[in-house]
Amino acid sequence: MDRRNFLKAGVFGAVMASSPISFSAFGQATKTTDRLGRLNLSFEPYELKLRHSFNLAKSQRTTTPDVQVRISYDGLTGYGEASMPPYLGESVSSVCSYLARLDLSQFSDPFRIEDIHEYLESVAPGNRAAKASVDIALHDLVGKIMKQPWYKIWGLNPDKCPDTSFTVSYDADPDEMAKKISETAPYKVIKIKMGLDHDKELVESIRRRSDVPICVDANQGWTDKEKALEMCHWLAERNCLFVEQPMSKDAIDATAWLRERSPLPIIADEFLQRLPDIRRAAGAYDGINIKLMKSTGMHEAYQMAVLARALGMKVMLGCMTETSCAVTAAAQLAPMVDWADLDGNLLIENDIFDGLKIVDGKVTLPDRPGIGVVPV
Amino acid sequence: MDRRNFLKAGVFGAVMASSPISFSAFGQATKTTDRLGRLNLSFEPYELKLRHSFNLAKSQRTTTPDVQVRISYDGLTGYGEASMPPYLGESVSSVCSYLARLDLSQFSDPFRIEDIHEYLESVAPGNRAAKASVDIALHDLVGKIMKQPWYKIWGLNPDKCPDTSFTVSYDADPDEMAKKISETAPYKVIKIKMGLDHDKELVESIRRRSDVPICVDANQGWTDKEKALEMCHWLAERNCLFVEQPMSKDAIDATAWLRERSPLPIIADEFLQRLPDIRRAAGAYDGINIKLMKSTGMHEAYQMAVLARALGMKVMLGCMTETSCAVTAAAQLAPMVDWADLDGNLLIENDIFDGLKIVDGKVTLPDRPGIGVVPV
Repeated sequence: MDRRNFLKAGVFGAVMASSPISFSAFGQATKTTDRLGRLNLSFEPYELKLRHSFNLAKSQRTTTPDVQVRISYDGLTGYGEASMPPYLGESVSSVCSYLARLDLSQFSDPFRIEDIHEYLESVAPGNRAAKASVDIALHDLVGKIMKQPWYKIWGLNPDKCPDTSFTVSYDADPDEMAKKISETAPYKVIKIKMGLDHDKELVESIRRRSDVPICVDANQGWTDKEKALEMCHWLAERNCLFVEQPMSKDAIDATAWLRERSPLPIIADEFLQRLPDIRRAAGAYDGINIKLMKSTGMHEAYQMAVLARALGMKVMLGCMTETSCAVTAAAQLAPMVDWADLDGNLLIENDIFDGLKIVDGKVTLPDRPGIGVVPV
Repeated sequence: MDRRNFLKAGVFGAVMASSPISFSAFGQATKTTDRLGRLNLSFEPYELKLRHSFNLAKSQRTTTPDVQVRISYDGLTGYGEASMPPYLGESVSSVCSYLARLDLSQFSDPFRIEDIHEYLESVAPGNRAAKASVDIALHDLVGKIMKQPWYKIWGLNPDKCPDTSFTVSYDADPDEMAKKISETAPYKVIKIKMGLDHDKELVESIRRRSDVPICVDANQGWTDKEKALEMCHWLAERNCLFVEQPMSKDAIDATAWLRERSPLPIIADEFLQRLPDIRRAAGAYDGINIKLMKSTGMHEAYQMAVLARALGMKVMLGCMTETSCAVTAAAQLAPMVDWADLDGNLLIENDIFDGLKIVDGKVTLPDRPGIGVVPV
């Protein structure tokens, strides 16, 4: 939905009606209508432009719809973001409609994160990315009040952040493919999307040019468990680290079967969204992929990492294509996880925040309060 | 061990040898030897005097050995405490020996709580109360740096704290028993220790004078599962809320059998100490009792509450006889739990901190940074 259609859909009106500020009043104007000692929410659609089109198991795309969020409180601003890759079921329209229904001005204390999450759930189920955008902005705000980044508040050592993987997708054009692989040079882990017709070709073309470990994301693309097992063995021989969501999220028994036999850890992605899903995942998967847009943000994401670690599961930290806002928010958790896939900001060409850096392949957290970003 | 024996045991010497400060230098003197930009640990034994002697399933006592701890850092002081009821296996001597072995001055950042816990584990296994004392002082310090109490940092609403129970033990003297029960008047929940010869008499004497709900702690005192089940039914008919540790911590199958049939929830106490124990507990118990002196402090206690809630278990928050220091530290978690048993400071007559209050029976958190206590 472009801006014109967005306006036509009447969402703008809804924003105006129930919120003290509109998404068009994103800059200066918010200040004039802000209520002192209250949480003031504003938001604005923002289309992310991808550097390379994404070739997934089930779709191809060149942009990702996104909504930028701010919560202001007593002169401080918390930044948040909702990213809505289409397969997750949210859209600019659904996110803006949801956010327009919120009355955060009822809260006078941004520290009441559990209460605010309870309120977010009470407004509507689902809407996980929309909820995440509020949660991220709240964490940014609260961290700024305490003048500390969240990795410190959580007691974590930023030196323990893992390397991040960088995603490469298949391209039928050999020159384009070579170019994509050459772009992975600064990274120590490559991630590939599988479940297409060119799975082995993709791995082989990478292996001709690079020997760094590969993370495999099958995106539910494999349908036959025997063939999936065969592929796991083939991948293990080619220095792959794990396979994410090899089969349909509904194929629990087949996944459990595969997991018992696979030489590579099997990680749940589409299978699992939030904290209560982890117990079920423990029966069929070795680990989980935590993403803020699935978990409703940082508060539940932290708890998911705690739970998965306590259950002896591997933890992977992922993201969508996002600006550095949501990626850096996720990265606050990086010292707790086994693998990071935090390249979402690197895959877009119109980032509007400065945040985490990848230094020598490693996730490197900014020494700034809150989620650690500044607009650029 | 009194102070004289403590000195004779040579622990004092150990403190002097490996620590920049001694427990005798607890006041002013610590300041002169503190290293700027480093964590400076000091500690001092402190004997807690009980208002009433404790009659437990297996012992009776009138004092509890305790060690008071401080960590200073750049002009701020964090308070901590280790309480050592004898059945947990720690003592003034073991705690002071452990603390004397620590070199916290290697840490320049009090926020590195996970690293410091790793270090505490590397120095020696066990020593959970000693580790808790360091963890509590660290949390106090870090909260003071951020100028916020931990319930706020954890995103919790202090209005959601439950009522606390107040412990009454059996006394053969009817007047003494009546006096003890009359002391429960300000509380909305009574806790009793069972597994003695007077279990039913105790309940009946309370019920003659009070109809508030009763929490039952059997302290592993019941040996026959059929009789335990009978007792659970009898207690359920008398407005009891749950039974804590009905049978031996080793009687897992019998406890699981009891739990399946009991009308009252069965809560693990002695069975479980730390985070990794919760998974095992989930098979035989409905809930867990979290205590800082078992969990090694607040960091793991918070994670235990997260894990237990995610596993659908009930969470109870307990304490030892402690000053308001450790009890108020535990109380920071109270908004997350189903039941609180935070009367440890009320059971001693020589408290040296001002902290949580019980208002109309409810745990009421002070609006102060860190763990929320000030020395009195």
